[in-house]
Amino acid sequence: MAKILSAAPVVEALRQKTLVKTQALASAGITPVLGILRVGEKSADLSYERGVKRRCGDVGIEVRVCALPADASQEAILDAVGALNADPAVSGILMFRPLPRGIDERRVCEAILPEKDVDGAGLRSLSGVFSGCGLGFASGISQAAMEMLHYYEIPVAGKEVCVIGRSLVVGRPAAMLLLAEDATVTICHSRTRDLKAQVRRADIVITGVGRAEMIGEDWVRPGQVLIDIGLSYSPVKQKLCGDVDLDAVAPIVDAVTPVPGGVGAVTSMVLLSHVAEAADRRYRLLLSRRAGQAE
Amino acid sequence: MAKILSAAPVVEALRQKTLVKTQALASAGITPVLGILRVGEKSADLSYERGVKRRCGDVGIEVRVCALPADASQEAILDAVGALNADPAVSGILMFRPLPRGIDERRVCEAILPEKDVDGAGLRSLSGVFSGCGLGFASGISQAAMEMLHYYEIPVAGKEVCVIGRSLVVGRPAAMLLLAEDATVTICHSRTRDLKAQVRRADIVITGVGRAEMIGEDWVRPGQVLIDIGLSYSPVKQKLCGDVDLDAVAPIVDAVTPVPGGVGAVTSMVLLSHVAEAADRRYRLLLSRRAGQAE
Repeated sequence: MAKILSAAPVVEALRQKTLVKTQALASAGITPVLGILRVGEKSADLSYERGVKRRCGDVGIEVRVCALPADASQEAILDAVGALNADPAVSGILMFRPLPRGIDERRVCEAILPEKDVDGAGLRSLSGVFSGCGLGFASGISQAAMEMLHYYEIPVAGKEVCVIGRSLVVGRPAAMLLLAEDATVTICHSRTRDLKAQVRRADIVITGVGRAEMIGEDWVRPGQVLIDIGLSYSPVKQKLCGDVDLDAVAPIVDAVTPVPGGVGAVTSMVLLSHVAEAADRRYRLLLSRRAGQAE
Repeated sequence: MAKILSAAPVVEALRQKTLVKTQALASAGITPVLGILRVGEKSADLSYERGVKRRCGDVGIEVRVCALPADASQEAILDAVGALNADPAVSGILMFRPLPRGIDERRVCEAILPEKDVDGAGLRSLSGVFSGCGLGFASGISQAAMEMLHYYEIPVAGKEVCVIGRSLVVGRPAAMLLLAEDATVTICHSRTRDLKAQVRRADIVITGVGRAEMIGEDWVRPGQVLIDIGLSYSPVKQKLCGDVDLDAVAPIVDAVTPVPGGVGAVTSMVLLSHVAEAADRRYRLLLSRRAGQAE
């Protein structure tokens, strides 16, 4: 029977790691600050905001919300980003997306400084993930998939990994993070000829397409690890589920992440760890600059 | 017997396409200009420079060389990049690399404006290739591999493509260009477990590792296309050769690019096509701005 890779212990371990970092920063007189930029008052945004605030408080991160009216202009939104960029106290920026219609979201994302782009929204963060140069941050969901593998000590180097999906938020960044850890990565998508064969062949499958329970028993074999980033509603089972039919594959594969309670549930803690990391990077940069001046 | 995919007709076709573009620009009073930045007088750089000048003249592209002494400072090099960036007449910038020791080459590459980065040197060009957003340009060698596939009408969509190598100049950009054309892409590298099996499985193989004649007859099967970006010296055959043992695979596979006279020979014409493209993009941008002002 497959091991169910649940989010809870991963989140707790990441929370502890983040806490260690924020406590070290606190002893240097620094409080990491997450700046949230919200346009309008969508209930999903407000609910996520409440959750983030609670979790931030729990790990010593301060939250400052910049809330704009739903009809805010492009200029007003860019000004708000500029203010968060310029504020030295703000370590990281989370902007709720999608932005209202008529706003050039790409342009606003690009305006976020990469060193504060804890949500991996901008192209410079993407180029950091692509090149491994350390600029910006990976998207929360792609990083959460890696946190799952790390926590459960699933080796990646030299393994055949099949990534299903090629979006800029899930598939492509996940592929690059896996490549950086020496996996042999195959990127599959809607135009892939025999997806089932690709999945069966892989040692590790990372899937994020949002097709309810697409991966069934005839798609898998013993020894595999399935990381499920999909989220969709199954009309058959009348519930939220992932790309993997967990009940069907559990008797066959080695390990599988559930949905809900899997990768998605790790994402918001990844965001907090990025805020602490951003504050830490900034602190180290200041230290090295001071050391440079002292010489 | 495999079809030998030689560079000559690909270069000629690309030359014609570039010429069409430069002639259209000429009729609008625009001459595309390639700005070359050279630090020192390495013979390889000088020889490449002569070749580029000749080919540029042939397609109506003007060349301006900014030559700095071998001991030029970081500031002097950055100033030269800044001047080429600021010069509205300069369409694209080619900077010979590697820069002399002690120079922060990454920083200089990042200084090149992405819209003039015809050699794909900067991270913003990489992010353009990664995201498909149209920013900057792909590296010449990765684009040259695609030009080979396009010219010889080798379909890529839905095909299994094995890319060997994960550098930021060859493997990773090639993988992203292939993905954008709907290939199912596997990225292999030094840590890949069974490289031979990966190669045998693929419909198309793009290899750029520089291991002389690594891919022999037992690595391939009928129906495959091999695109060879490798370049190394074979001590056995006492000549330059690619990653593919052409004599060994030719009786088996469908098509293969030779080395020399293959992908590498297409690269410099790709550079020129990028210069024309950069001038064209700039012209269209000016036109659309003028149209905006006229409204």
